Amino acid sequence: MTKHIDLLLTNAIVLTMDDEFHQYEPGAVAVDGDSIIAVGSDDLLKTQYAAKEITDCQGRVLMPGLVNAHTHAAMTLLRGLADDLRLDVWLLGFMMPVEREFVSPEFVQLGTSLACIEFIRSGVTCFADMYYYEEEAARATAEIGLRALCSQTVLKFPSPDADTYEQALEVAQDFIQRWVGHPLIVPSVAPHAPYTCTEGILQATTQIAASYNVPLHTHLAETLTEAENSKEEHGMAVIPYVEKMRLFDAKVLAAHCVHIDVGEIHTLCHRKVGVSHNPTSNLKLASGFAPVTGMLEAGLDVGIGTDGPASNNDLDMFEEIRLAALVAKGSSGDPTALPARTALAMGTRLGAKALHMGDVTGSLEPGKRADLILVDISPLHNAPRFRRDPEGIYAQLVYASKATDVTDVMVNGRWLMRERKLLTINEAELLAHAAAYAKKIDAFLIQREQSVLSKLIAIGGAMEQESFEVQVKVRVSDPDAIIERIEQPDLEILQQRRYHEFDTYFHFDDPAQGQLRYREDEFINEKGEITNVRYRLTMIGQTRERHFPSDVLLSRSRFIAPAIHSLRFYREYFKPKSETFIEKDRLRWRVIYQGTEFYINLDRIAQPDLGTFLEVKSRTWSLRDAENKAEIAEHLIAFLGAEMESTVTQDYVEFIEEPK
Amino acid sequence: MTKHIDLLLTNAIVLTMDDEFHQYEPGAVAVDGDSIIAVGSDDLLKTQYAAKEITDCQGRVLMPGLVNAHTHAAMTLLRGLADDLRLDVWLLGFMMPVEREFVSPEFVQLGTSLACIEFIRSGVTCFADMYYYEEEAARATAEIGLRALCSQTVLKFPSPDADTYEQALEVAQDFIQRWVGHPLIVPSVAPHAPYTCTEGILQATTQIAASYNVPLHTHLAETLTEAENSKEEHGMAVIPYVEKMRLFDAKVLAAHCVHIDVGEIHTLCHRKVGVSHNPTSNLKLASGFAPVTGMLEAGLDVGIGTDGPASNNDLDMFEEIRLAALVAKGSSGDPTALPARTALAMGTRLGAKALHMGDVTGSLEPGKRADLILVDISPLHNAPRFRRDPEGIYAQLVYASKATDVTDVMVNGRWLMRERKLLTINEAELLAHAAAYAKKIDAFLIQREQSVLSKLIAIGGAMEQESFEVQVKVRVSDPDAIIERIEQPDLEILQQRRYHEFDTYFHFDDPAQGQLRYREDEFINEKGEITNVRYRLTMIGQTRERHFPSDVLLSRSRFIAPAIHSLRFYREYFKPKSETFIEKDRLRWRVIYQGTEFYINLDRIAQPDLGTFLEVKSRTWSLRDAENKAEIAEHLIAFLGAEMESTVTQDYVEFIEEPK
Repeated sequence: MTKHIDLLLTNAIVLTMDDEFHQYEPGAVAVDGDSIIAVGSDDLLKTQYAAKEITDCQGRVLMPGLVNAHTHAAMTLLRGLADDLRLDVWLLGFMMPVEREFVSPEFVQLGTSLACIEFIRSGVTCFADMYYYEEEAARATAEIGLRALCSQTVLKFPSPDADTYEQALEVAQDFIQRWVGHPLIVPSVAPHAPYTCTEGILQATTQIAASYNVPLHTHLAETLTEAENSKEEHGMAVIPYVEKMRLFDAKVLAAHCVHIDVGEIHTLCHRKVGVSHNPTSNLKLASGFAPVTGMLEAGLDVGIGTDGPASNNDLDMFEEIRLAALVAKGSSGDPTALPARTALAMGTRLGAKALHMGDVTGSLEPGKRADLILVDISPLHNAPRFRRDPEGIYAQLVYASKATDVTDVMVNGRWLMRERKLLTINEAELLAHAAAYAKKIDAFLIQREQSVLSKLIAIGGAMEQESFEVQVKVRVSDPDAIIERIEQPDLEILQQRRYHEFDTYFHFDDPAQGQLRYREDEFINEKGEITNVRYRLTMIGQTRERHFPSDVLLSRSRFIAPAIHSLRFYREYFKPKSETFIEKDRLRWRVIYQGTEFYINLDRIAQPDLGTFLEVKSRTWSLRDAENKAEIAEHLIAFLGAEMESTVTQDYVEFIEEPK
Repeated sequence: MTKHIDLLLTNAIVLTMDDEFHQYEPGAVAVDGDSIIAVGSDDLLKTQYAAKEITDCQGRVLMPGLVNAHTHAAMTLLRGLADDLRLDVWLLGFMMPVEREFVSPEFVQLGTSLACIEFIRSGVTCFADMYYYEEEAARATAEIGLRALCSQTVLKFPSPDADTYEQALEVAQDFIQRWVGHPLIVPSVAPHAPYTCTEGILQATTQIAASYNVPLHTHLAETLTEAENSKEEHGMAVIPYVEKMRLFDAKVLAAHCVHIDVGEIHTLCHRKVGVSHNPTSNLKLASGFAPVTGMLEAGLDVGIGTDGPASNNDLDMFEEIRLAALVAKGSSGDPTALPARTALAMGTRLGAKALHMGDVTGSLEPGKRADLILVDISPLHNAPRFRRDPEGIYAQLVYASKATDVTDVMVNGRWLMRERKLLTINEAELLAHAAAYAKKIDAFLIQREQSVLSKLIAIGGAMEQESFEVQVKVRVSDPDAIIERIEQPDLEILQQRRYHEFDTYFHFDDPAQGQLRYREDEFINEKGEITNVRYRLTMIGQTRERHFPSDVLLSRSRFIAPAIHSLRFYREYFKPKSETFIEKDRLRWRVIYQGTEFYINLDRIAQPDLGTFLEVKSRTWSLRDAENKAEIAEHLIAFLGAEMESTVTQDYVEFIEEPK
């Protein structure tokens, strides 16, 4: 008895990607409503089903749509903005400042829509997203007709869509409440990573996910630094730490899992955590080689993800699946590791299971939704075809097919693309919007990059110092005599300190940019021990912005900021033309002389070996005050027994550039 | 004054890829005849040149064509034939048997033509080829209009186009003589690799290359095995060895260079050797990570190659350049390693220099041949475009562009593709031919794969043994008593040996396939020392193909071959269903008893521990002789004092499968 259905797809090489990797050639798939009714040989299904529509697949491969197991879709709008940089420079120097400025509901709606087009064109029917304003991502995706796990990000820092993490948690909960049960969208919550969340966030997000029975999406053990820091801070590796936080009480999708050991793999397996392996991202950011073969052997559901298009720089799952297969071989030294069939299973069924959506999508099986694609394997770059080995077709798809070979895409029983024509979205309109965004972002960054100062401000925390600087510097031959004078009762000493200072000066092409100093101050106590270290960044404007009668008086801008990143970070971010290094031992007194506060520095310049100098310094916002202080400073120098004839007007760094 | 020229390409993003990476936007390129006359801004060139034809590039990227620095083009016909295998199984088990059977002038002409289409479609204008019947490759390439370094392979073994290497050398020399000076083809000679060539071949090929002043193309230091063997056999690493052979007296293009140290890099640099880095091939075959950054820093000309399409499995240089950039980061742990601009330079100018063709192609510079491509960077997978950083365009091309974005290709001033339409070749016709070849190759391999025996014969050297086997086996409790009887004068001992034998039996699904035994024989001398080791492969047909009155007599096929590969190789090649392992100590005598020759074995089965057995054996082609021997064998057993009641008819391996 024939059964009446909506659609019969015939004359295809059907790759079910089910547990037993059933293939049918020529094969057919029967679809009714949003679901697959039957999969089998052409002959059999033609006799069993009477379809309203019969589609001849012309010998193309008919397979489940690909599952992109981890991405940040809206970042299509930031693709190619900054590349070949270290993670911190890329993230803190470019992505986060731009995101702070530009990410809005409109940005997310547009960026996600662009991503959806790229997904459809390259055969992706389901993706796991993690971003801000995730409700907009969900809405755009549902309208276009793709399936997605949409995860609202929660961070301990302020983010583009939440000033506090309490607010972010609320946004996530509201979003999940509204979307749970949607036919295409599975809403979820994304505590960004253990090191960007507090313990409270980890616990709260777990509770939200568990209470709505939705997945929890996060980044785990991406870099060696993260793994090492976890051991240092929590006394345990990343996986045990989040397990202790009870994160795995939720259905977790964990991106990366690069730096995990056999025990951690066992834990992930035991707690049914899904994993997204992201080979391009891991290579491009040099995060390391994930133990993919070991995870698969342990029975983990490992999918494949592109990660965000700003760090990949595309959403091409064909590339990603191929790379997963290649990298597993190269990093293990075993050319039989991760064969094509397994790689393709990761890109389909295992990916869907990693998203905890394996009951709905990821293979062509009766009862699952009709999420499927047609791939043309006849183009020359994929010819000829050998039929000797049934595994050959997987190798063909993984090693030779391109994303552009995808011709047709169906999600939930609805065609989204036929013969490479998009059916549910206007591409040209979106591209024009994207170009307009790029123009604005370009302008923002160009403006910022115009000055070292604005680049400093962009990464946060620079404070302007008083505009006028009083500075007398004299070379001294007998430092002990100076110290004796300082200790006379005429001088009120407010504070005394000793530092060991390591200064690196960045110089730039345009002298108007001034100089940037990275200073490491070691605080030395009376016993000569280091008690503390301070890192400071000082942006020093061009000297002598104005001329004064006295050399003692200067006016130049100075911005000061705690240097929370490494010297290496600032070097790669600011790209100085050249650098100078100075090391000195500084004795510093804060004193009151003639009712006025000054700093007295007695500096022994150790590298380069320049001798010892006495400095008297003060700063003020007032010109009159500055002129007054300049006069008293000269008296103070005399009082300390130094001679004004040996006054030096240059900074130490200038000595080295133009030695006297 | 305006100059009259053939063609002006205008309104492009011109990336010259010259030493200073000049860019012009909007830029123009002036072409006259086969050469580039000028490169510059649109405005300037429009005033300077009056062109017969002006092509508006519509804002596409105009850049030098890509250079594929190492491939075996004709192997397009073997693409996807066998994948996810170790190099030896892939090469000895599949590629070489198929090449022996199928490679002909027609095969090379067709395979190279297919490759040329793939090259044109993906923006490759020049490639370095190495294969057999290279004259056919050169002819096909020249007809289609691409530029190539065509290298005729020389091997110490017989090859598809030469029975001896002397003949191969002659073929190479004739080929070079005929083609030297061709406007598109640079002919050359390819001693395949140091380990597949004799010293004489290395010297003769160097001499040929040097005397015609053409490049010499070879594989160097691809695998760790090669590097280690070189040290063992020659007492030095690969590069010093070939330098000692004076190979670098020729202009060398060396593929791979994976396992080389700093000193070897220095040598390559000093001797101006060009290198082809082949990242997909190195990953897929798990050869290792080439020290690309180190080579570039040393100043070596390192190009990028796809290697052959049977091990890649395509000729897509966009993929290859991207992978080079990604792998350098991942393997070094430095995300700033091999930035996009450098990777693209490797795919163009540096590649051309590695081929010793840098004066002719590889960049857009006046005086070079007009080898150029247009790339459309407007598709969605590459949007938006940021202009802040002039390096951004390289990142866009390397990390986001696809081979399918190439729209136009010109070589030597001649258009080969316009708006994705091929102009010089009929693709459909060639594809039909390729499909016919694939069918024949499939049939050949399917036939071969049908039996374990034919797979054994395919890898060479199996010899059939006599059809009738006389075998009596009895369990003995007092081996010393047996030895005493053997040493009686009634028995003439022709030879006595002692072995330690390690047998691995492969079992297959179909019992009719018989069993395959991999045996390691340690020869033990009187002092108990190992004097020699022999590896043998024995294909044992199903027992008792006929029934005889006596259990002592058997008939089954037996093929024996020296096992020149490892157990692991045979395991991966034959893919047995299961395995059994037996270890025994064997005392063996070849004796004459009653005028008839027998083998007497006294076997102590050590693993599994089965005790000691006495075997009397003989083989013959004659049934009558076999029946006669069966009778005498029973007497011999009695003579040796063993009891026929304890006779065992099974082989040792059968004991283990079905223990008594």
